Amino acid sequence: MKRSQSFAKTTKTVPNDETSRSAKLLLQAGFIYKELAGVYDFLPQGMRVLENIMQVIREEMDALGAEELRLTALQNKSVWESSGRWDDSVLDVWFKTKLNAGGELGLAPTHEEPITRLMQGYISSYKDLPVYAYQFQTKFRNELRAKSGILRTREFMMKDLYSFSKNRAEHDEFYERCAAAYQKIFARLGIGDTTFRTFASGGAFSKFSDEFQTLCEVGEDTIYLDREKGIAINEEVYNDDTIRELGLDKTKLEQHKSAEVGNIFTLGYRFSEALDLCFNDENGVRQQVFMGSYGIGPSRVMGVIAENLSDEHGLCWPDEIAPYRYYLIGIGEAAQKVCAELYAKAPENIIWDDRDTARNGEKFADADLMGIPYRVVVSDKTLADGKIELKNRKTGDVELLTIADFTNKLV
Amino acid sequence: MKRSQSFAKTTKTVPNDETSRSAKLLLQAGFIYKELAGVYDFLPQGMRVLENIMQVIREEMDALGAEELRLTALQNKSVWESSGRWDDSVLDVWFKTKLNAGGELGLAPTHEEPITRLMQGYISSYKDLPVYAYQFQTKFRNELRAKSGILRTREFMMKDLYSFSKNRAEHDEFYERCAAAYQKIFARLGIGDTTFRTFASGGAFSKFSDEFQTLCEVGEDTIYLDREKGIAINEEVYNDDTIRELGLDKTKLEQHKSAEVGNIFTLGYRFSEALDLCFNDENGVRQQVFMGSYGIGPSRVMGVIAENLSDEHGLCWPDEIAPYRYYLIGIGEAAQKVCAELYAKAPENIIWDDRDTARNGEKFADADLMGIPYRVVVSDKTLADGKIELKNRKTGDVELLTIADFTNKLV
Repeated sequence: MKRSQSFAKTTKTVPNDETSRSAKLLLQAGFIYKELAGVYDFLPQGMRVLENIMQVIREEMDALGAEELRLTALQNKSVWESSGRWDDSVLDVWFKTKLNAGGELGLAPTHEEPITRLMQGYISSYKDLPVYAYQFQTKFRNELRAKSGILRTREFMMKDLYSFSKNRAEHDEFYERCAAAYQKIFARLGIGDTTFRTFASGGAFSKFSDEFQTLCEVGEDTIYLDREKGIAINEEVYNDDTIRELGLDKTKLEQHKSAEVGNIFTLGYRFSEALDLCFNDENGVRQQVFMGSYGIGPSRVMGVIAENLSDEHGLCWPDEIAPYRYYLIGIGEAAQKVCAELYAKAPENIIWDDRDTARNGEKFADADLMGIPYRVVVSDKTLADGKIELKNRKTGDVELLTIADFTNKLV
Repeated sequence: MKRSQSFAKTTKTVPNDETSRSAKLLLQAGFIYKELAGVYDFLPQGMRVLENIMQVIREEMDALGAEELRLTALQNKSVWESSGRWDDSVLDVWFKTKLNAGGELGLAPTHEEPITRLMQGYISSYKDLPVYAYQFQTKFRNELRAKSGILRTREFMMKDLYSFSKNRAEHDEFYERCAAAYQKIFARLGIGDTTFRTFASGGAFSKFSDEFQTLCEVGEDTIYLDREKGIAINEEVYNDDTIRELGLDKTKLEQHKSAEVGNIFTLGYRFSEALDLCFNDENGVRQQVFMGSYGIGPSRVMGVIAENLSDEHGLCWPDEIAPYRYYLIGIGEAAQKVCAELYAKAPENIIWDDRDTARNGEKFADADLMGIPYRVVVSDKTLADGKIELKNRKTGDVELLTIADFTNKLV
C-alpha cells in the first residue's frame, strides 16, 4: 500500500471520549472510526488486522474438521420462543425490529437456536454425527453500556462454533480438542503467555464452563490464577469448594483483571430438547443430540492485543496479524527509486510512505503508531554502502542489510 | 472436502414454497437454508460460491485503486436526518430498532450518509482527493415482498464502492473505469454475454444512472436491448426522447425480462452538501466534494447465475466460482485407494464422495445437482488401462486421462 493513495490518516489528537489505551491508539492510527458508542467501523488497516486474526482462527477451526457456514442476523421469533429465549427478561441484549410485511424479528446476539433448527434437516441417524459447524458473523447485543473501544461493543465480529455429538463421551473428546485449538490460536495471535483457561459459571447449561481470559488492566473480569499450572478461576465461581474441587492451593492464586477472549460451553440437551433435535442410534432408538458451543470474539481479541502489546509510541502488532510487515521510508532521490523497486516486488507486504507532504519525522512516528513490525529506511547514506536499515518495532533492534538480503526476505 | 464429513446433504424433495428454479436448486443442493421469507443462511458449499464471487469483485475493485473497509449495520439517526433519509416516507425499506440505553437506531440499507460523514475526518484538501473506498457488507432492507430465493431478500451481501472526486471531470473518468471493471467482473463470473449496461433513472441524483442488467426470466426488470451495440434501456426511462438521445433505432430493440446485478450512480453534491463534505482547492477556495456510488449484490449475482446457468440435472457453476473444481467418485476397492491418493494432493480443489452409504447413481446425480465443473470417476475398469474418466458438467464431454495427466491438472 502506498500511503499517498490511502485515505485514512493518522492523528496526534487524542480522542477525549475514550478511556482505554487501545481505543485511543486505534482511532489515532486510523484503524477504526466511531459511529456511535459501542459501534465502530473498521478502516482499511484495521480491517486487515481483523481479517488476519480471523484467518488464524479459521485455519485452526478447519484443522478440527469443522465446516464454515454463514447464518443470518435477522431472526425468526418462533424459533427463539421454542427455547424460551425470545423473552427480553431471559435474554436482555436483544435488538428487535418489525417487518413491514407484518411480524417481529430479532437481531441475533448468538445462534444456538437457529443452528439447532437447521440441523433438524441434516441430522437423523447416528451416521450423521458428529457435526461441527462454525461461522464468522456479526453479532448484535443491546448492551446498556459499551466499554473500552472495541472490547465491549453493540455490534461485533464473532466466531461461533457448534458441536453436535452422539453422547457425552464424544462431546468431551471434542471439547478438549477445541480447548487445545484455542490455546494454539491465542499463542499464534501473540497473547498465548497471558491467556489462561479459566473455570467459570456454566450458566443455565452446566456447572462450569471454560473461559479463556487474557490478563488486561481494562478487562471487565477478575480471575484467580495459578500461574504454575496455567489455569485460573473466574471470580464468579471463586470459593473454597471450587478451589478444592480443582485441587488448587489458595495461597498460590494471584488476583488479576482480565478480558474474556473466548469461551466454550457444554450445552448438553438444553437446545436439542427445546427444538427436538434427535437421531436414531445404532439400535434404532431415538436419542437427543448432545451439543456444545465455542466462541471467540475476533474484534475483542484485536482490542486486547492493541491494549496489551502497545507502548508509548503506539500499536505493536505481532507479525502474523500486522496489516503489513514492512513500513518503507526513502530519504533522498536515489533512495526513492530503490523504494519503488522494493515496493514493486511485494506490495502486499509493504506500506511505502511515499508522501511528499509528510516530513521524515512524521513518517517515523507513523511507522511506530501504526505498529508495523519492521521499519525499513533507505537513505542515500545507507545506499553508499549498498545497504538499507531494518528496525524491529518490538525490540528496537536495528540492523543494516544489503538490498539483496532484504529482497530475499520479501519474496 | 470429503462428503462423508460434510453435514449438508442434497435432497430430491423439491421445496414447494419457492417458485424460482435457482431457489429450488440451491435448497435441494444444500447450498442455502431458509430462515424466513427473504432471509437465507449460506451453508458450506453456498458460502464458498459466494466468497468466490466476492473475491472476483474484490480483485477488480483493488485494481481500480479502491481501498476496502467495513462500516457498521447499526446506524446513527442524526447522520441520516442530515440528508432527510431517516424518514420512512423517503426511504421505505428501513428496519429500525431501539437502544436499551435510550434512542433509536437503524439497520443500514445502504451507506452513503455514514461514509460521507466519515470522510469529513479524512478529506480537507485537494491533495486528499480522489478517494475510492468499498466494502462487502450485509445490507438490511425491509422489503414488503421477498422474491425468487436469493434474488430479492431482506438481508443480503452487497459490495458498495463510493468515490469522492474534486470535480465532475475527475468523477466521469473514474465512473467509466468502474463501468469497464463491472463488465470485466460479469465476464469473469460467466454472465458477461448476457449482461448489458442499461440506461435507467438517475433517481433523485441525476438524469440517468447506469444499471447492469442480466437477461433473466425471473428478473423483476424489463429492458429494451440493442444487441449489436451491447446497450439497453430500462423500461422506466424507455421513451422516444431517450431512444433519440442515445442514438438508438427503436425497431432494433428487443424486449427482455432481466435482473439488476449492478448499478452505478453519479451522486454529485447530494450528500456532500447535506453532510458538509468540502475541500480546499489549489487556490484555497472551499469546494464541495463530487460523489458517486457503485453497487454489486454478490448474493443476487449468485442467484442469477444459479438461475441462468443450470439445467434439468441441477446447478452448473463456472470454474472460477465453483465451490470445488472436481467431484471425485471411486468405484471398486483399488479405485478407492487411488481416490484417496488424488484427494490428498489437492483437498481444496476436490469433493471426494467417499460415502459408503450412497449408491454410485446417487453420487453421479449429486455431482450434477451441485454443479461441480468436472466429475472424475475412477473405477477398477478404467484403472485397467491406468486411466480415469473426466466429464465436463457443462458440455457433457468425456475424456479418459492417465492418472499422471490428471495429477498435473491438480497441482
